[in-house]
Amino acid sequence: METTKPADDLSIDTTIVRSLLVGFLRDGIRNPGFTKGIVGLSGGVDSAVSACLAVEALGPQNVVCIYMPYKTSNPQSKTDADLIATTIGVPLETVDITSMVDDFPVDLANDRLRAGNIMARARMTTLFDLSQRDRALVIGTSNKTETLLGYGTLHGDMACALNPLGDLYKTQVWQLARDLGVPKQIIEKVPSADLWIGQTDESELGFAYKEVDRLLYYMIDQRRSITELVHIGFSENFVHQVRAIVKKTQYKRRMPIVAKVSHRTVNLDFRYPRDWGI
Amino acid sequence: METTKPADDLSIDTTIVRSLLVGFLRDGIRNPGFTKGIVGLSGGVDSAVSACLAVEALGPQNVVCIYMPYKTSNPQSKTDADLIATTIGVPLETVDITSMVDDFPVDLANDRLRAGNIMARARMTTLFDLSQRDRALVIGTSNKTETLLGYGTLHGDMACALNPLGDLYKTQVWQLARDLGVPKQIIEKVPSADLWIGQTDESELGFAYKEVDRLLYYMIDQRRSITELVHIGFSENFVHQVRAIVKKTQYKRRMPIVAKVSHRTVNLDFRYPRDWGI
Repeated sequence: METTKPADDLSIDTTIVRSLLVGFLRDGIRNPGFTKGIVGLSGGVDSAVSACLAVEALGPQNVVCIYMPYKTSNPQSKTDADLIATTIGVPLETVDITSMVDDFPVDLANDRLRAGNIMARARMTTLFDLSQRDRALVIGTSNKTETLLGYGTLHGDMACALNPLGDLYKTQVWQLARDLGVPKQIIEKVPSADLWIGQTDESELGFAYKEVDRLLYYMIDQRRSITELVHIGFSENFVHQVRAIVKKTQYKRRMPIVAKVSHRTVNLDFRYPRDWGI
Repeated sequence: METTKPADDLSIDTTIVRSLLVGFLRDGIRNPGFTKGIVGLSGGVDSAVSACLAVEALGPQNVVCIYMPYKTSNPQSKTDADLIATTIGVPLETVDITSMVDDFPVDLANDRLRAGNIMARARMTTLFDLSQRDRALVIGTSNKTETLLGYGTLHGDMACALNPLGDLYKTQVWQLARDLGVPKQIIEKVPSADLWIGQTDESELGFAYKEVDRLLYYMIDQRRSITELVHIGFSENFVHQVRAIVKKTQYKRRMPIVAKVSHRTVNLDFRYPRDWGI
């Protein structure tokens, strides 16, 4: 799949993408008989974009926004979540997850990965519970970069009913955010899961979004071989590192493996009842 | 797909199935570099069978069994979980989920569905956390009947890394349990998720496993039309009821929907990195 077009062009036509994603949310929520969507606002750009799109698709009265801090959460996250909610005209409901998380006998300071997963899952449990209370579908906020790198918690922040951002790289989410009028301070802040004090995505990942998005775009979207990627200018180490991460985290992107013992196994031979007649 | 063989024969060759499932667990855990599996024992037959198979595949020293009661759990569940653990020679670790669940402001008595989902998700969070502690993969316990009827909590008891039971109907799990030497009292007890006092699967579902397994087998495995199902002897009401349940719960069996905006979208065009080179 060679192309002469500059392949590293991650820029998107935000007008088209925006209208496509608004339609996706409207149909995806209304067709199964719902009218509302629910979004967990973290104060970051991804959930801000999901919430903006939801408001455009459903109207502010049909969007529920929840902020779920832990005791160590950066107070700036709350300020930013408030700003986003005000901007889109949706009230912000706060559910503190501190006591839910602290019930788990995990040493937060020394076991950040386990603690971060517990926090993400306490948020998922809260969000899905409130989605039941409000008869709203959970709108996802994981972007394509996070999804491909497995940078998120399975059954935690990766869980949702439908996801408008899953096919947009982080740098593309930033572009869309500008078009949607997300406040500048949200777009320009350093990305962080805010699971512990001082955490930033890029220091944890070990590379910048701008850099890895470009590599992923060549590697996944353009299906370039390792040789081609090196020829393009990526260091061999970086290519192998990212490739290994994508491979190792595949389990987060697929349903669990089921042992096949019959002629028709869920997700293998039986996958389509959503469209079964009426 | 007409057949002359008696199509309602749900009996399985337990020797073949047992050996297939043991191999499935051994490969599924060892190939990605693990040696251990972890199972949440509820005291019921499904988790008993998963644990037995795990011990056969990995040895008792490589199987972690966790019992996770809530304050209203039937004390008999603990007795039964203990009996299973003793039978397979694995110590039983107990993690009480009461405080984790009670942090959620949900009225347990009046909102059983929400409460049940919160319990199932507290158990998932615990099990996945301990899987990280022990470097063990979470072995699933959802059978084919539950999976097709969506009778389980998404991101709760349905969550796992790999599932040996997902292609076996409940009545087939009972057959396999006998072959594996699961204690009789576990096999013969009335199936219950034990999420509230007096709950039983069959009264909640509104039909018996024996009955619905036979219908699902004809409907899904044998791909019979509604007309054929009625001709076989199922009441039209029952057929429509079960068909509607299978259709309505499809979202629990598939990954979330992602809006497609690129040439290569996770789970649509990009699905195979598990087998990418080395």
